[in-house]
Amino acid sequence: MRHALALARTVIHTTAPNPRVGCVIVRDGRVIGEGATQPPGGPHAEVCALRDAARRGESTAGATFYVTLEPCSHYGRTPPCADAVVAAAPARVVVAMGDPNPLVGGAGLARLREAGIAVTAGVCQEEALALNAGFAARMSRGTPWTWLKLAASLDGRSALHNGMSQWITGAEARADGHVWRARADVVLTGMGTVLKDDPQLTVRAIDLPRQPRKAVVDSQLRLPETARLLDGSEVWVFTVSDDQDKAERLARRNARVIRLPAAAGRVDLAAMMRWMAGQQVNEVHVEAGAGLSGALLAADCVDEVLAYIAPMLLGDAAGMVGLPVLENLKEARRFEFIDVARLGGDVRLHGRYVERWQQLMTAAAAF
Amino acid sequence: MRHALALARTVIHTTAPNPRVGCVIVRDGRVIGEGATQPPGGPHAEVCALRDAARRGESTAGATFYVTLEPCSHYGRTPPCADAVVAAAPARVVVAMGDPNPLVGGAGLARLREAGIAVTAGVCQEEALALNAGFAARMSRGTPWTWLKLAASLDGRSALHNGMSQWITGAEARADGHVWRARADVVLTGMGTVLKDDPQLTVRAIDLPRQPRKAVVDSQLRLPETARLLDGSEVWVFTVSDDQDKAERLARRNARVIRLPAAAGRVDLAAMMRWMAGQQVNEVHVEAGAGLSGALLAADCVDEVLAYIAPMLLGDAAGMVGLPVLENLKEARRFEFIDVARLGGDVRLHGRYVERWQQLMTAAAAF
Repeated sequence: MRHALALARTVIHTTAPNPRVGCVIVRDGRVIGEGATQPPGGPHAEVCALRDAARRGESTAGATFYVTLEPCSHYGRTPPCADAVVAAAPARVVVAMGDPNPLVGGAGLARLREAGIAVTAGVCQEEALALNAGFAARMSRGTPWTWLKLAASLDGRSALHNGMSQWITGAEARADGHVWRARADVVLTGMGTVLKDDPQLTVRAIDLPRQPRKAVVDSQLRLPETARLLDGSEVWVFTVSDDQDKAERLARRNARVIRLPAAAGRVDLAAMMRWMAGQQVNEVHVEAGAGLSGALLAADCVDEVLAYIAPMLLGDAAGMVGLPVLENLKEARRFEFIDVARLGGDVRLHGRYVERWQQLMTAAAAF
Repeated sequence: MRHALALARTVIHTTAPNPRVGCVIVRDGRVIGEGATQPPGGPHAEVCALRDAARRGESTAGATFYVTLEPCSHYGRTPPCADAVVAAAPARVVVAMGDPNPLVGGAGLARLREAGIAVTAGVCQEEALALNAGFAARMSRGTPWTWLKLAASLDGRSALHNGMSQWITGAEARADGHVWRARADVVLTGMGTVLKDDPQLTVRAIDLPRQPRKAVVDSQLRLPETARLLDGSEVWVFTVSDDQDKAERLARRNARVIRLPAAAGRVDLAAMMRWMAGQQVNEVHVEAGAGLSGALLAADCVDEVLAYIAPMLLGDAAGMVGLPVLENLKEARRFEFIDVARLGGDVRLHGRYVERWQQLMTAAAAF
């Protein structure tokens, strides 16, 4: 299964909106076929592995399949993988996570069992889910999996009072930030950051088949048509403004203005997340200032926190997130540190909101 | 040498103001004697190891000594260890760090070499120095080695606006904080913390031969005579006030009021550190609010930062350290993360100011 997970990781940038899946076929202790899901319209991992076995002249009868996700049981752009697996006549299929779509989950495994194939499910489920948390979130709850990238000093200051923030963290931390940008479907920022830093929001120094889509929360539609992020690719601009003139001017720069319901005069962020899921967005990487970061947290739209901490203390300077004032520490929603890494001179603290993860684990349980 | 360092660690709470030293004597690949420095007035590590060898009936002639600190060459409360080592006629002496006292450093090793003993110096110097940074700082620069203990949320907030701060971090982090308190000679806090939390400042849940001394920076001599930290042990109160009445009332509670020079109307913190070194204080553990923590940083009185980070974001709440506003990130003094540890649900980030450590390494170089 670890090998199948490694195969799935090799297609992390190419399968969206489909899940990243790997498959390994083993017989008599030998790998006789392996594969990973191809770009949309192409074959899924199981079929790739079967073709690989055929190419090697190996028979799959009586073999064991290791698949990181329950084989699909429905016709999409490709025929159901479960049928292809049944036709290969394996003795056993080992699956990491179940299909998180509540309408079809379990049907793939049921199809295999009906055919008399032994099924083992839930092997390395956490690792498999971490690769496809976005797909699982979209399927099971109708919103993307969203992480908040933050960079700050040890005392949680992300910029000086005069706005200076480049660069608090070092080159290794910034490069790692691009790795996370690269795997996301959407890189989201706020107007404060656009007006202050005029970021490009592209992924640099990583060879990608596609750049993640850029998106801006711009409640008042203040986005300058000269903003550097408007680089010709379609950029999503979420607003509550009905300024048609501005929307048309932005459209000429290939910005797609999406008018959303308002919440206290600003974009309803939960509605924005649902809209993105409707566009088949699995993963959202947020790189914004304290305003939007705090608003997303307050609106319960954040699943993970990716904080890069630099070895300095800045004292009285700009905070990382703006949140409503708490009266009791019990009100603070705690997450869980799932990983701690050193990157050059900085430290990356990776946190995850436990209950949101548990919901996904439940949705991705395989029986 | 690692074994000698482990022996030195066993006496971490008992040798002050002397350094923590371990010694292992090896002959023909066998340990024939070992020891660690006894409480002040008692024998040093080398003599303990020699006595251990004698007790075992082993001859030290031709053996190798591993000592974590250069053997002393002067008469203190005990005769020079270098003479005892020479009398033991070893073939070789391996030393981790040199004597950091600039007046005597190198004399111990010179004494050994004059006697025809082969000397290897600088083995595991960093580890040895980490055990005795306080002794080295006091000897080489005339101030204690000082670490700042901080506890905060991921966004660097140490208390809510209403003052609530108990407990941001969990039980494991708090227990670890007591381990650091325990090794220090002095636990230092500020009046803000005393008035807000009324802390005891004692070490709990660790069996100690002595409690570290408590000390308070109290520029205006506002310490209530009923403060819980006044528990009968002598407490140092640093002030610039000349309120004799208050000082006498505090003296009845065994508080020793130390009047120090003022810096901008408050206690001159550098002078306070020099005063403590004059009292043979090697290590100071600071556990204070943003005011004193920031003032110590601004006065260049902090060598290490020990930050316990809890997995939560608090937004607009009290900061960790109060510091003068910076205009440029280049002005921010960077430290270096030397260790990252997970403690229960929290993370401990241990930082050290590089240039201050390098000064100690130079002072503790062994030739």
